[in-house]
Amino acid sequence: MIYFDNSATTKPYKDVLDAFVTVSQAYFANPSSIHSKGGESERLLQQARKTVSQLLHVKPQEIIFTSGGTEGNNTAIKGVAMQYATRGKHLITSAVEHASSFETFHALETLGFDVTYLPVDEEGRISVDELKAAIREDTILVSLISVNNETGTIGPIEEVGKLLQEYKKIYFHVDHVQGIGKVPLSFTKAGVDLCTISGHKVHGLKGTGILYKRESVLLSPLLTGGEQEGSVRAGTENVAGIVSLAKALRMTFEYMDAGVRNMEKITSYMRDELEKLPSVVINTPKTQCAPHILNFSVEDVKPEVLIHALDQKEIYVSTRSACASKQTGASRVLLAMGMKEKRASSAIRLSLSYENTMEEAEIVLRELKKAVTELQEIMR
Amino acid sequence: MIYFDNSATTKPYKDVLDAFVTVSQAYFANPSSIHSKGGESERLLQQARKTVSQLLHVKPQEIIFTSGGTEGNNTAIKGVAMQYATRGKHLITSAVEHASSFETFHALETLGFDVTYLPVDEEGRISVDELKAAIREDTILVSLISVNNETGTIGPIEEVGKLLQEYKKIYFHVDHVQGIGKVPLSFTKAGVDLCTISGHKVHGLKGTGILYKRESVLLSPLLTGGEQEGSVRAGTENVAGIVSLAKALRMTFEYMDAGVRNMEKITSYMRDELEKLPSVVINTPKTQCAPHILNFSVEDVKPEVLIHALDQKEIYVSTRSACASKQTGASRVLLAMGMKEKRASSAIRLSLSYENTMEEAEIVLRELKKAVTELQEIMR
Repeated sequence: MIYFDNSATTKPYKDVLDAFVTVSQAYFANPSSIHSKGGESERLLQQARKTVSQLLHVKPQEIIFTSGGTEGNNTAIKGVAMQYATRGKHLITSAVEHASSFETFHALETLGFDVTYLPVDEEGRISVDELKAAIREDTILVSLISVNNETGTIGPIEEVGKLLQEYKKIYFHVDHVQGIGKVPLSFTKAGVDLCTISGHKVHGLKGTGILYKRESVLLSPLLTGGEQEGSVRAGTENVAGIVSLAKALRMTFEYMDAGVRNMEKITSYMRDELEKLPSVVINTPKTQCAPHILNFSVEDVKPEVLIHALDQKEIYVSTRSACASKQTGASRVLLAMGMKEKRASSAIRLSLSYENTMEEAEIVLRELKKAVTELQEIMR
Repeated sequence: MIYFDNSATTKPYKDVLDAFVTVSQAYFANPSSIHSKGGESERLLQQARKTVSQLLHVKPQEIIFTSGGTEGNNTAIKGVAMQYATRGKHLITSAVEHASSFETFHALETLGFDVTYLPVDEEGRISVDELKAAIREDTILVSLISVNNETGTIGPIEEVGKLLQEYKKIYFHVDHVQGIGKVPLSFTKAGVDLCTISGHKVHGLKGTGILYKRESVLLSPLLTGGEQEGSVRAGTENVAGIVSLAKALRMTFEYMDAGVRNMEKITSYMRDELEKLPSVVINTPKTQCAPHILNFSVEDVKPEVLIHALDQKEIYVSTRSACASKQTGASRVLLAMGMKEKRASSAIRLSLSYENTMEEAEIVLRELKKAVTELQEIMR
C-alpha cells in the first residue's frame, strides 16, 4: 500500500497510540475531580499543555485543546465575531479557505456579519495590498489559511501579520492545519492572535486538536458549560487524546527537518516527471508552496476514474479536500485561482508524510502514467 | 483502590480500548476520502451508526456523533434556538441542569432569548403543571436533565413528553448523560426530539458522544464546515472513537439488567447504613432515583477534608459535578432543592458503576464512619 493522501489524514504514530492507551487505562479519572486520581490526570493534562506550549513557543494558558481543526476554526472565528460584535461586524477572509472556515463565515453572514472574501491570484495567494484596502473601521477579524489544503500554496501570513500590527483592534486567525510540521510559522513574528492545529494531520489521533489563543484575546465560547480550558472550551478533557497529541507534535517537530527535506525531494521529482506528460498540468505553484502537496490536473480524464485505477494498485490519492471530496464538479479553490471549469474539475492531489519514500514515488509515477495513457485511449 | 466517582467518569472497558486501537491502526483513512481505504473507514462508521441506532431504537440518520456530553447539549440547545428563533425566543429548562446546559441557556439569554428556569421540589424534581403554566406562544424548546448528576433524582421525562405532544411546535431535549445504562428511556414513548449521551460515562472513551436528533428536527449547526454527520456536525469523524463508543454502548446494554440490580442493592444498603449516622443526612430521594448515585451531607465536616481522608485509604468519591467541583461553596442543585447553605455545601456524592461490589461498599462505609467520627472530634 502506498498512501499519498496525508492531507486528508495520517496514520497515527505507534508511540502516540501507545500513550493514548496507557493514559486511558492508568489515568482515566476526570481531571476536574478533586481526589488524588483526578489530581494525577490534571497533572498529565498540565504537562501536555506545557509540552505543547514550549513546542509552539507560547504560554501554557494560551493553549486550548479542542476536538480538531473544524472545532478550532469554528471556536476562533465565531468566538471573535460574537465577542467583539459590538465593536464591529466586518470580517475578512479569502476565497480559498477550508470548508471549516469558509462555511463558518457563511454562517456568520446569516447572523448579520459582513464578510469580505479576498480573491486570490493564479497561484492561490491573496494580495496584501487588497487586504489592506479591504480593512474598514468596523473590521474585527482577519482569518487566513497558511497552507492551502488542496494546492499547498503558502499564503503571505507574515506580511499580513506585519500589516495588522498597525491595526490593534483587528484580530488575526491562521488556519495552520496543513502547515504545522511542514511550513514553519512563528506566532510572535507573524503577529498571530489565534491559530488552529489538528492532531490527525500530524500522525496524532482523530478527535484531537489545538487552538492557540493569545492571552489578551477574549473569545465568546462555542461550547459553554464547565470551566475547562480557561472557560473557552467546556467539556471533560480528553486527557488521553491530549497527551497523545502532545507526543505527536513533539515527534513531528523532532522529525521535521529531515522529513521536510525528504518530502521536498519527492514532490520536486514528481513535479518534474509529471510535467513531461503532455496531458498533465500542475496546479501547485513552483515556489512558496508546502513540501508535502502536489496538485495537478489531467484533462480529459475523470479524477474519480484515475483514483479508482490507482486504487487497484493499492495507491491512495485524492481529488481535493476530504471534507469536500464527495461533492462533484469543479474545485472551489481551483476556480478561485482562475482555472477553467475543465481543469478545476480534473484535479488530483498527492499529499505526503515524512515517511513516504522515493521508491513509492517511482511506483506512483509509473502507475499514474500507465493509467493516464490507458484512460485517454479509452476516451478517444 | 475503590472508585466511587463514576458519575464524573468511568474506566473504559478493555474491549472498548482494544476496538479503538484496532481501528486507529488498520482503518485510519478519512471516511470522506473516495479511495477504497476511505470506503473501509466509511463502512465502519456506518456500522457503528447502525449499531447505536438499533440499541436506541431509532434510525441511523438520527444519530449524530459528537465529542461528548457538553457538545451534545450545546448542539441541541443552541441548534434549536438559532434554527427556530424566528418562530419564538422562549426556552424552558430547570434550575438543576448540568453546567453544559445551564450555562448554555445563560449564553442564549445574552443573545436575546428568554429562558424560564423551572424551580424544583425538595427532591429535585420539576412540576409538570408548572412547566405547562410556563409554556407560551413563543416557546420553542424544553430541555431537561433525565437523571440529575449530583443527586440521582429522576425527572418526570415521560410525563413532560406526554404534555408536549399537545404542543407540536415545541421541541423536547433530554440530557440523558447520567441516565443512559442506568434508567431506561424510550425516545418514542417519551416523545423525545433530541437526546444527549456521553461515551465516557458508560466505560467509553473521553471525547466521544452521541446526540440523538429526530429526523424532522432541524438544527443550526454549532460546528460548520464539511458535510459530515448530516451537515449538523462538521469535522473529520473520529472513526476509532465512534466504533469504540458503539461497543461501549452495546456492552452497557448487555450488562445493564444485572448491573442495575447490583448497584441498587449497594446504594440501598449504603443509604440504610448512612442514615444511622446522626450527623449524616441523605440528599438523594428515596424513590424515583437512579441506582448509581447516593448523595449525602455530613454537617460540620468540610467535604473536601472528608474526601481527602478517604483518599488516604484509596477510596475515591466526589463532592458534586466534576464540571463544577473546583467551585467552592454550596451546590447550586442542592440550594435549588431548598436546602440550607450548610447542608448544600457539605455534600458528598458516591457514584457507582456495574462493577462495584458490596465488599467495596462495606469498606467505604467503615472508612467513612471512621473519618466522620475523627473529623467531628477534631472540630469539637
